[in-house]
Amino acid sequence: MQVSSAQYSDRAVFAWLVAGSQVLGVTAVVLTGVWMGHYHGGFAWDGTQQEFNLHPLCMVLGLVFLQGDAILVYRVFHNEPKKNVKMLHGMIHLLALIISIVGMVAVFDSHRAANYADMYSLHSWCGLITIVLFCLQWVMGLLFFLFPVASSWLRATYLPIHVFCGLVLLALSVGSSLLGITEKLFFSIMSSYSRFPPEGVLANVLGVLLVCFGVLLCYMITNEQYRRPRNPEEESLAVHFKTLTEGGSPTEP
Amino acid sequence: MQVSSAQYSDRAVFAWLVAGSQVLGVTAVVLTGVWMGHYHGGFAWDGTQQEFNLHPLCMVLGLVFLQGDAILVYRVFHNEPKKNVKMLHGMIHLLALIISIVGMVAVFDSHRAANYADMYSLHSWCGLITIVLFCLQWVMGLLFFLFPVASSWLRATYLPIHVFCGLVLLALSVGSSLLGITEKLFFSIMSSYSRFPPEGVLANVLGVLLVCFGVLLCYMITNEQYRRPRNPEEESLAVHFKTLTEGGSPTEP
Repeated sequence: MQVSSAQYSDRAVFAWLVAGSQVLGVTAVVLTGVWMGHYHGGFAWDGTQQEFNLHPLCMVLGLVFLQGDAILVYRVFHNEPKKNVKMLHGMIHLLALIISIVGMVAVFDSHRAANYADMYSLHSWCGLITIVLFCLQWVMGLLFFLFPVASSWLRATYLPIHVFCGLVLLALSVGSSLLGITEKLFFSIMSSYSRFPPEGVLANVLGVLLVCFGVLLCYMITNEQYRRPRNPEEESLAVHFKTLTEGGSPTEP
Repeated sequence: MQVSSAQYSDRAVFAWLVAGSQVLGVTAVVLTGVWMGHYHGGFAWDGTQQEFNLHPLCMVLGLVFLQGDAILVYRVFHNEPKKNVKMLHGMIHLLALIISIVGMVAVFDSHRAANYADMYSLHSWCGLITIVLFCLQWVMGLLFFLFPVASSWLRATYLPIHVFCGLVLLALSVGSSLLGITEKLFFSIMSSYSRFPPEGVLANVLGVLLVCFGVLLCYMITNEQYRRPRNPEEESLAVHFKTLTEGGSPTEP
């Protein structure tokens, strides 16, 4: 297939954007680790504060970073057969889901050990809604696109909903994380927060990085230029997606 | 222009979605008023807590509800000349911007009177970034689309960026509002929040309503079915958008 110089230039810009998103994502995960490790005593699985500390780390790693990257694979692996990319998309999502569930168990477990109440804050409401919808999205994706259960028409109808819900879930994950950061700061450093202590600044920067990661991901995913090109050779390989690619719908993953 | 029964059905569903979004938006504004009015002593412009109370009300009304509706006008007013819709879009945005700036002044003013620190929390960082970008987006929109300053090519290039940034701004506005709700609750009812007091539940419900409003708006705006149809008659009226509508780009407002 002929590739024009404009397409090369687009791919070069895209490569830089992907690199930028990965720097943002990894930095956010590392900052979360530093925040919980340096300021809150590190990690353990023993019902203490150290078990709680796994909650932010798992959520930033699984629910935000890996979920974002799972969506991004469709844009990154242009030359791979779509079937393989679909498998990778589902597998990274599964890993993200498992890590997120571990993070959720960590908070309930540490709350129970410390006799703290659950599910009363806006963070917990938004977080639980996000995890439940994430599970639902993953199961629906599996049924519609990896197993040949649904008809072509049903898959074509569901695809734009799946794509839209994926982006909403990413935004909800970032939003819930920001609520969690605010809640944790108010529990830990409420009296000194207004004097710009290092912990407060670090956590605020983490929040801004998560927003930048989410916005950059959404930009790359929704931008027409970075959409996977329709390639007749790969269409024969991607059996389930065949009917979807034909129309060249802008909602094609 | 012929309208098929499928298009009628789409418009009927769209009308229900618009009605739903307006119910969500108005309920959110009313709940904010009730929260600040009933639990925090109402509103005034005198440097007290009552002046602070204008901050959440203005932000939910201006930054979320009116900003969302300003974006929605392109989808709602299908039969109006695009030039008029563009004017309405800009004017509702201007109103949203003025109300948001009043809300921002209210918080700085009440903080100064009470000798509270400013701009240390994640809410304040995200909120200020949102307001600054909102101003920038409005000025850029004015220069590119209402005044004939930019060339057709430049307008066509900027349009998808304008649309993307508009949706990001709406998401940022909802996110910043949720952070503000959490912050306010921790300042007001931190000790009783875990016992599900009416104020905590009301504020959490407000947060969930704002998320639903944002998601519903994004769905209506990004859904291909609800996009403004290309109408040859109106193209002669919408001079500035002429070149943009020709390609039928999915990023057309």
